[in-house]
Amino acid sequence: MEVLTSSINLIHKKVNRNRNIDNTVQQLSKFLAIICFILFSGNVSGQELKSPDAKLVAKFALKTGGVPTYSLTYKGKAVIRPSKLGLALKTGTSLLDGFTITDTKTSTFNETWKPVWGEVKEIVNHYNELAVTLTQQATDRYIILRFRLYNDGLGFRYEFPEQKKLDYFVIKEERSQFALAGDHKAFWLPGDYDTQEYSTVTSNLSEVRAKMKDAVTPNASQTTFSPTGLQTPLMMKSKDGLYINIHEAALINYSCMSLNLDDKNMVLESWLTPDAIGDKGYMQAPCQSPWRTIIVSDKAGDILTSKLTYNLNEPTKFKDVSWIKPTKYVGVWWEMITGKSTWAYNDLTSVQLGVTDYSKTKPNGKHAANTAHVKEYIDFAAKNGLDAVLVEGWNEGWEDWFGKTKDYVFDFVTPYPDFDVQELHRYAASKGIKMIMHHETSSSVRNYERHIDTAYKFMKANGYDAVKSGYVGNMIPRGEHHYGQWLINHYQYAVEKAAEYKIMVNAHEAVRPTGLARTYPNLIGNEAARGTEYEAFGGNNADHTTILPFTRLIGGPMDYTPGIFETKVSAYNPENTSFVHSTLARQLALYVTMYSPLQMAADLPETYNKYMDAFQFIKDVAIDWDDTKVLEAEPGDYITYARKAKGKNDWFIGSTCDENGRMSKIDFSFLDKGKKYLATIYADGKGAHYETNPKAYAIRKIEVTSKTKISQYCAPGGGYAISVMAK
Amino acid sequence: MEVLTSSINLIHKKVNRNRNIDNTVQQLSKFLAIICFILFSGNVSGQELKSPDAKLVAKFALKTGGVPTYSLTYKGKAVIRPSKLGLALKTGTSLLDGFTITDTKTSTFNETWKPVWGEVKEIVNHYNELAVTLTQQATDRYIILRFRLYNDGLGFRYEFPEQKKLDYFVIKEERSQFALAGDHKAFWLPGDYDTQEYSTVTSNLSEVRAKMKDAVTPNASQTTFSPTGLQTPLMMKSKDGLYINIHEAALINYSCMSLNLDDKNMVLESWLTPDAIGDKGYMQAPCQSPWRTIIVSDKAGDILTSKLTYNLNEPTKFKDVSWIKPTKYVGVWWEMITGKSTWAYNDLTSVQLGVTDYSKTKPNGKHAANTAHVKEYIDFAAKNGLDAVLVEGWNEGWEDWFGKTKDYVFDFVTPYPDFDVQELHRYAASKGIKMIMHHETSSSVRNYERHIDTAYKFMKANGYDAVKSGYVGNMIPRGEHHYGQWLINHYQYAVEKAAEYKIMVNAHEAVRPTGLARTYPNLIGNEAARGTEYEAFGGNNADHTTILPFTRLIGGPMDYTPGIFETKVSAYNPENTSFVHSTLARQLALYVTMYSPLQMAADLPETYNKYMDAFQFIKDVAIDWDDTKVLEAEPGDYITYARKAKGKNDWFIGSTCDENGRMSKIDFSFLDKGKKYLATIYADGKGAHYETNPKAYAIRKIEVTSKTKISQYCAPGGGYAISVMAK
Repeated sequence: MEVLTSSINLIHKKVNRNRNIDNTVQQLSKFLAIICFILFSGNVSGQELKSPDAKLVAKFALKTGGVPTYSLTYKGKAVIRPSKLGLALKTGTSLLDGFTITDTKTSTFNETWKPVWGEVKEIVNHYNELAVTLTQQATDRYIILRFRLYNDGLGFRYEFPEQKKLDYFVIKEERSQFALAGDHKAFWLPGDYDTQEYSTVTSNLSEVRAKMKDAVTPNASQTTFSPTGLQTPLMMKSKDGLYINIHEAALINYSCMSLNLDDKNMVLESWLTPDAIGDKGYMQAPCQSPWRTIIVSDKAGDILTSKLTYNLNEPTKFKDVSWIKPTKYVGVWWEMITGKSTWAYNDLTSVQLGVTDYSKTKPNGKHAANTAHVKEYIDFAAKNGLDAVLVEGWNEGWEDWFGKTKDYVFDFVTPYPDFDVQELHRYAASKGIKMIMHHETSSSVRNYERHIDTAYKFMKANGYDAVKSGYVGNMIPRGEHHYGQWLINHYQYAVEKAAEYKIMVNAHEAVRPTGLARTYPNLIGNEAARGTEYEAFGGNNADHTTILPFTRLIGGPMDYTPGIFETKVSAYNPENTSFVHSTLARQLALYVTMYSPLQMAADLPETYNKYMDAFQFIKDVAIDWDDTKVLEAEPGDYITYARKAKGKNDWFIGSTCDENGRMSKIDFSFLDKGKKYLATIYADGKGAHYETNPKAYAIRKIEVTSKTKISQYCAPGGGYAISVMAK
Repeated sequence: MEVLTSSINLIHKKVNRNRNIDNTVQQLSKFLAIICFILFSGNVSGQELKSPDAKLVAKFALKTGGVPTYSLTYKGKAVIRPSKLGLALKTGTSLLDGFTITDTKTSTFNETWKPVWGEVKEIVNHYNELAVTLTQQATDRYIILRFRLYNDGLGFRYEFPEQKKLDYFVIKEERSQFALAGDHKAFWLPGDYDTQEYSTVTSNLSEVRAKMKDAVTPNASQTTFSPTGLQTPLMMKSKDGLYINIHEAALINYSCMSLNLDDKNMVLESWLTPDAIGDKGYMQAPCQSPWRTIIVSDKAGDILTSKLTYNLNEPTKFKDVSWIKPTKYVGVWWEMITGKSTWAYNDLTSVQLGVTDYSKTKPNGKHAANTAHVKEYIDFAAKNGLDAVLVEGWNEGWEDWFGKTKDYVFDFVTPYPDFDVQELHRYAASKGIKMIMHHETSSSVRNYERHIDTAYKFMKANGYDAVKSGYVGNMIPRGEHHYGQWLINHYQYAVEKAAEYKIMVNAHEAVRPTGLARTYPNLIGNEAARGTEYEAFGGNNADHTTILPFTRLIGGPMDYTPGIFETKVSAYNPENTSFVHSTLARQLALYVTMYSPLQMAADLPETYNKYMDAFQFIKDVAIDWDDTKVLEAEPGDYITYARKAKGKNDWFIGSTCDENGRMSKIDFSFLDKGKKYLATIYADGKGAHYETNPKAYAIRKIEVTSKTKISQYCAPGGGYAISVMAK
């Protein structure tokens, strides 16, 4: 704008000085004036924003008709071609067009903040910001589009300030587009309002439609919405090697965003989750949408180390965070997942809480959550320096909890006759072990909310400071979806209330995280993807864990619950022929490659006791970090991380690869110069293979320094784990 | 069955004795044998049940195909012609046919019980019962149909005992039919999932279809479902003078029943309220449906005095009921209903609880619920011997509570800046007055449940023992309806939780009552019909109160809030030209004719102060009774009650009539013989008329005895009230 004005002034000055200049110049200045008029009038209006290192450039422009658009380039290459923004409203004029720019503000922000737990000790939050005020003249309403451009990507959101003509409105659909620059390779999940537990499909975007049907495998609760619907985080790689990840940050009081692909034009568009009557958001100004995020780099590792999602969330207001503790745990769980034991106490098919007298029923003899057995887990945890024991199936109601759309399904406080809450609290405390509570809600969410204060109080009274919650099955209230605004609001309610009680939450089957743990650091985990349990339900793909950090982990940690040593499930339950698609060594690697402040050693103690040399890595591995490096990374193929333990000089390395196997190259230059370290390498043994020979592993120790470089073989579906202890 | 068997035996004996009898007899006996076979095989199987006085006869029979049916006669006249019973299920085989009778049990029950509050001191519960077990051979499932036949009517319900082949099931529709014997005159409301606030239509059933459109007047939340849909209680009168009332009793954990009329065949069928996805009930055996009730008499007054609905409910398990008290109250309410004052504190159109700082906003100067003004109500109550003061609009949130589908609309504990909770508690207590709490939920029911414990605790901490709750507007969770199982469950939750806190509940816009107050006597009132407030929203029909006791009051009392003396609303708010379609004298009568343990003197103290002679009746009238007599009754025309005050020798009489006016005949023979009483008669004055001259009233005193008979004129839309004090 300034350039043009100067040009016009210059021309006018020249014209004035040379009154003899002919009409051409006059016509030229008129032409320029017309250009200026067009620019000022808003038919084409542009704003540009650069990242601090100027590699990323975002542009905002109003297209004809006052339609807001933006675009993004990386080192001059198109990442997002000009794409429309706006919202369709349920009633009245939508917020899609008819805008003019009535204000723009630019600013810069640069801070360094410390997360309560994380992959690194400190996080730099440095962005350039552009806030564009758009006024819709015809309705006298205005919105603000805010863009924050980081070195690692872009975030933008809609803001609806308090104003006369816009107070209550209902969103019919958000229309944020992401026009891609090519038919990228994508790592995608079918878009679904109720589950993320699909195996990732790796294909070009143009193949999504053909592959969708097979991708939608059965689930306890699922609702697809489009033959080209996709979930976020969506990881992509362009043909010219650009890594692009689309997600959202700070999902609060809004509907969860999926993406719908126009596979003719390669344009993604936001697709929100509807409620029971088809509406997609109830808004009251002042309010805002979550941030829509696009992480970009030509290095795959940059996607993994990006902190953009957290940076877009608000800092925490928690004053005391001493009660929030990374936790390494075992649990009465895998033996039920495999079918060796049951959650249920007896074999009734229908029970009524408070009516059914469990003490008079016949126990089925397979109920794992009994006092004596839990004590064995406590003993194992104490003996091996772990922190806690999770117990599932401790409470009345498991006989008919699943698939009945049962309203009053659990009360969260009444144990089975063979589970002595107080005794186990006493016993665990005497051994320095914490108990982790389990709240399976069965998606009966009103029931959970009715009991939640009592349930949290019960936890504190009995020494439980952390809870794993679950939302298995179709949602009640019926017609609502797991990722609709109603449930986003519930998950938030549960986490905020937990914080009042100083309780940590690990929510399974809830919405995938969007960096909220910056604001609510007691949200220490989610599942929100296909986890280790599916290894017992038919298996995960061998490359599954080479993808998840690029997708699921973008918004927050996953309680992946690795550490299965006995990969053949039939060893526990002869009727279950599933097997874990992983070597034992790769299971160790996951403690490093699947970052989480909550890490489970998921297998049975009796199995670990047979492999204590390998288990040593699990005992040693840190779960909170000062620093993280990505040594190698290619989504779908391999990832190698090196992480520095918090407050120590020790490092831990983990590598995971796909079904092909590979040679991994480890460059130890991240170590302190001049220091010596003892590296214990837990690797795939000779002939190891995730299916035919998973348990072949080899442990060796070598001295390493910052100058060391080694190659390490990884079997198909394998990897390695290394503890690097300062000498 | 016995008669037939005897006949056959007789014939066989005869045949045997006369071996020479020809083929005709042999053929006859074969024919009879075939008849018996048909009877025994279940193609036609009959059970009969009589009321204790034998006037009512109910029959159960299985029709061809194993379809359950029942019928009812009164003194030999058909009340219900043979009508089908059963339920359609969402999946699998329905429970409609294919039954055989596998058991029948008959029994008799006779008790007298005392209600905690009521129209009478004691209630006789005397019925003959038939329980028919029906087995559906093809599915190996069975249900029990239980019939209870009283002298005043029939109740029947479905029971689903615990059994192997029936545990969880979802009701698609209940198919209980009521095949009527004629095109009865009916007093009906349009069937609706969300409101009962329509004016009753009086017409023949054949006219329902034509009159439906005009009957469905606008409401804040409404969902009609059929051009011939009807609500219950449904009051009817046959052409030959039989009064028939259909309703339900003990509606717990089930969907509310409406009726759909097949106006070709005059058959009503149950029509349940669906949830957000169209399902009509989630059931887990053992369970049962509510009772479907048919009250019958050839005397209108018997419908009014019937206690069948209460008798079919379970006795209360409450041990201490001393905290449950009939209450006479005034309230800061009518001045807002008329538009004279506001619920809201300021004129903002959008607020956010906890964010909006009310102390910094500009009060609108019309907020009635302020400390000084409430004290005036307290003073009035104390001076006039009333019990309590209700205050609406005391709490933050009223600025945008209506029509916004707002989720976090109220927190039920934060007062406006000008309402001093503690001071008003102190002041009221010092005057011996109770405060009544108000919880308008705005139908944001999850929000109410999230706050309900805190809200109830707040009540007890501040001296509130009773709450008026409200459910104005469309339901949240969206897609649910006021009368669906989800909300029935919620209302029950609120009442049961209130009992834990020793709180009485008066729920407005909730489901109409079904006698639950027997079991939960803290449910002291509901609105659940078009009440006095509608007099300020255009007016009620002049005959409205001659109908409500036959319809709305069948299942429980109504907080009708009568006592409007200044019937022209424009006197309070010149912009509101509505008027109360009632004379002043009839307003007094309503304290007797509209039974309720909760009675409001709804007008403003400043108005009452101008008519203290008339107000004397409101001061004197009892609100709890030892006995009740119906002196005169014809639905839609007039009702005259005489009631004996609890624990006293005083009686109160009230009479209400329609737009025609009439001469009422009062026979005082219900008084104790040989005693003298002073009767103060508050009657319509000369020329009184509900529209043109409502305030013309006359008060006179006469001595009466049990031998007295008088005639009393009632104006159009008028009536009279009499206090009869023992001398």
